[in-house]
Amino acid sequence: MTVTKPLADFYAHVDANEAHYIDKLREVVAIPSVSSDAAYRPKVFEMGAWLEKEMQRLGIQTKRHHPGKHVMDGQELELPPIVIGTFGTDPKKKTVAVYGHYDVQPALESDGWDSDPWTLTMMPDGRMVGRGSTDDKGPVIGWLWVVEAHQKLGLELPVNLKFVFEGMEETGSEGLDDMIISMAKTEFKDVDCVCISDNYWLGTTKPCVTYGLRGISYFNMTVQGPAWDLHSGVFGGTTHEPMTDLIHLMGRLVTPDGTILVPGIMENVAPVTDAELEIYKKLDVDMSDIEASVGAKTLIYANDKSKTLMNRWRFPSLSLHGIEGAFYAPGAKTVIPAKVTGKFSIRSVPNMDPKEINEKVSKYLEAEFAKLNSKNKFKIEGSHGGKPWVGDLNHWNYVAAIKAVEQVFGVTPDLTREGGSIPVTLTFQTALDKSVLLLPMGRSNDGAHSVNEKLDKDNYIKGIKLLGTYLHQIAAIAK
Amino acid sequence: MTVTKPLADFYAHVDANEAHYIDKLREVVAIPSVSSDAAYRPKVFEMGAWLEKEMQRLGIQTKRHHPGKHVMDGQELELPPIVIGTFGTDPKKKTVAVYGHYDVQPALESDGWDSDPWTLTMMPDGRMVGRGSTDDKGPVIGWLWVVEAHQKLGLELPVNLKFVFEGMEETGSEGLDDMIISMAKTEFKDVDCVCISDNYWLGTTKPCVTYGLRGISYFNMTVQGPAWDLHSGVFGGTTHEPMTDLIHLMGRLVTPDGTILVPGIMENVAPVTDAELEIYKKLDVDMSDIEASVGAKTLIYANDKSKTLMNRWRFPSLSLHGIEGAFYAPGAKTVIPAKVTGKFSIRSVPNMDPKEINEKVSKYLEAEFAKLNSKNKFKIEGSHGGKPWVGDLNHWNYVAAIKAVEQVFGVTPDLTREGGSIPVTLTFQTALDKSVLLLPMGRSNDGAHSVNEKLDKDNYIKGIKLLGTYLHQIAAIAK
Repeated sequence: MTVTKPLADFYAHVDANEAHYIDKLREVVAIPSVSSDAAYRPKVFEMGAWLEKEMQRLGIQTKRHHPGKHVMDGQELELPPIVIGTFGTDPKKKTVAVYGHYDVQPALESDGWDSDPWTLTMMPDGRMVGRGSTDDKGPVIGWLWVVEAHQKLGLELPVNLKFVFEGMEETGSEGLDDMIISMAKTEFKDVDCVCISDNYWLGTTKPCVTYGLRGISYFNMTVQGPAWDLHSGVFGGTTHEPMTDLIHLMGRLVTPDGTILVPGIMENVAPVTDAELEIYKKLDVDMSDIEASVGAKTLIYANDKSKTLMNRWRFPSLSLHGIEGAFYAPGAKTVIPAKVTGKFSIRSVPNMDPKEINEKVSKYLEAEFAKLNSKNKFKIEGSHGGKPWVGDLNHWNYVAAIKAVEQVFGVTPDLTREGGSIPVTLTFQTALDKSVLLLPMGRSNDGAHSVNEKLDKDNYIKGIKLLGTYLHQIAAIAK
Repeated sequence: MTVTKPLADFYAHVDANEAHYIDKLREVVAIPSVSSDAAYRPKVFEMGAWLEKEMQRLGIQTKRHHPGKHVMDGQELELPPIVIGTFGTDPKKKTVAVYGHYDVQPALESDGWDSDPWTLTMMPDGRMVGRGSTDDKGPVIGWLWVVEAHQKLGLELPVNLKFVFEGMEETGSEGLDDMIISMAKTEFKDVDCVCISDNYWLGTTKPCVTYGLRGISYFNMTVQGPAWDLHSGVFGGTTHEPMTDLIHLMGRLVTPDGTILVPGIMENVAPVTDAELEIYKKLDVDMSDIEASVGAKTLIYANDKSKTLMNRWRFPSLSLHGIEGAFYAPGAKTVIPAKVTGKFSIRSVPNMDPKEINEKVSKYLEAEFAKLNSKNKFKIEGSHGGKPWVGDLNHWNYVAAIKAVEQVFGVTPDLTREGGSIPVTLTFQTALDKSVLLLPMGRSNDGAHSVNEKLDKDNYIKGIKLLGTYLHQIAAIAK
């Protein structure tokens, strides 16, 4: 693949400034911007201010969005600002929205860290260890070095950028969705595509581009019998027991091999295409890594990578989470619970519709309850949960990202999806109706929320090149 | 029924001393001997001392058994003494062991009492309202008035008595079982039968004699899958979920109409005899009272008194109590619990054997788990729970009690059983291997653990006569 002169200069500049980028990463890791601990809240603000100052130094126009206050640890606290940055407003260029977050998970050396979590520690094997290195400070500032490099080189950035950096991602992203939705027709009206760098490679040998998420529909079904809990000695055998009914209903939802028993639920699942099968065959994943993350040999398709990942990403699943109202403590209690609520959820995929899922589940369970001939009362409530999402891999946003990976890493990226939800992705998708993708910087083994979180130096430096190349590719191919 | 001269004198004496008995009941109700509250512990001791002094006044030889200390409300507390009384040791007479308790449930006027719970309040309808009036101070001191009346009349009591009055019944009877078992061959070696007055009539119009209890076998079955809880978004559909397996197994134990699905479990249930059917037909019970105690129209046999009571007392039942390890709180959590323990119990009846129940349940569930083809691990543990018990209605102990009811009340008593367990009954039965029965003094609507607990004056006075008559009947017919 030929590299244009501007990109060749950009790569050389990035390589030459490695020490500068690492110094900057050390600076931000040293600010313990833990969003989930009231005591660290000033540090989150400090980190937001650091970022804003650095953006201003680079000529990025910034504004702060203040989502207001919230209550945490019994205190009313000011939420950290969402820093919005605008770099370029040329109507002839595409505008790329970039999302990242500047808050981090908590970390204590006593948790088992091999070094101070707030001091970036360079390891001989290239690991740069420190809290926030990979989640998400490395990727966030990586975007800034793309801008900086172009300025230093006197190169014009071929796209406009719109940065959205929040400080509450690890603690529920309070205020973010509202802001994106409210600014869809103002601040974000010119956005042509969205890039999120807050996830990880599937494996450790090649980058990925993430193009889909499962949705979720969460259900509470309640069986109410007696007016109060009863003693099983006195009433066992004489009254319809809500637990018995509920357990029967919960047992009719899914089989031990994961087959969903709700009639019609699989009807709308998008059929697997040959192109998709090809994607799954090529994925960089070791089944033993997945098994290690489960910690036991309980994978349903232990020797089938494709089936395992398809069931994680592109087929629905149904999980039984628990029961509210029943006995749950250690020991023995001889209670007949009066009212019990079974909790379960369905992870949905295109082209399943949350409303239709709700209807099918409710209709089925009501019919199954009727078959029980119980005198208890039954009620089911479904949350109107998150929709599933899948991006169009043929959109220039994806084509650009894939080409950028090929150019910088010399390999075609894994095309991955996620089994769970990443709310901001869906919010951007829904509010702006533009192509969204996830382009990660770190590896699967970075330990984002664990001890000894790291970003490999190679991922950081190549990651900066990747992000810049992606922008050039967009400019080259976007329609 | 003819009444002997001594009994006629006894009845006349009891009637003449009504005011004295009520004064004494007022005295004991005024001592708030709440065993479950550390602050009231001195009052429990005071009540024990009152009882001992009163027994000594009547020539009953007493001794105190001190069970030791226990920890409650964070304090180490001395357990109140079990007062043992011996009245008569004539080897030519039968020795009747009598059990009762002198502690009471807590009571606050602010709970909704219409009068001070510690002041015996005489109502125009004959109710004597006060905490402990029926549970169990009225019955306990009723026994003493039988002794007192015979002394005053110069009549010889035709049996020996062995009293066992404890002060921790409402708070777990700590130390009682150990004492009974350890003294079986010493203090209690001459006991010929046991009478417990700590329960209630089935209804409100006629007394009962209670001759059976269901046993209980409690089970914990555990399904273990992943090494830790998993996120359903990331792992749903790829791994065997312990909750799915457990719910399937729990659903194979009992049907919504209460039919137990464990093979062979009904094999040992003693067949219903014609004599039994006759007992059930005559029982004084109003189905609307049972429905009221459930608080909802969920009775399986709503219009069938016999079926309802047979299912409570003389058929086994299986109740599902809950699950440990699963999500149980309000709200939504998308967890795949790693290890879940289902809790259920079987109420057993003669001639079911706890060991055999354990074996059948374990074998069945292990086979059902194997059918699930799950890679999770399964384990079942059964407690060696309480045995079922049923007394021989033809034993002279029962014949005497039934005749005594007929003599004092002019009706044949209800012959009742209990669906739950009353541990002291089984302990006496097992440790002494003598006939045990329950001969209650109060009515079903006395509200033993509720506000406005009462003992009807009529029940108290006739109850004293009943207890005395029972002893005379034993002397007349015991072999």
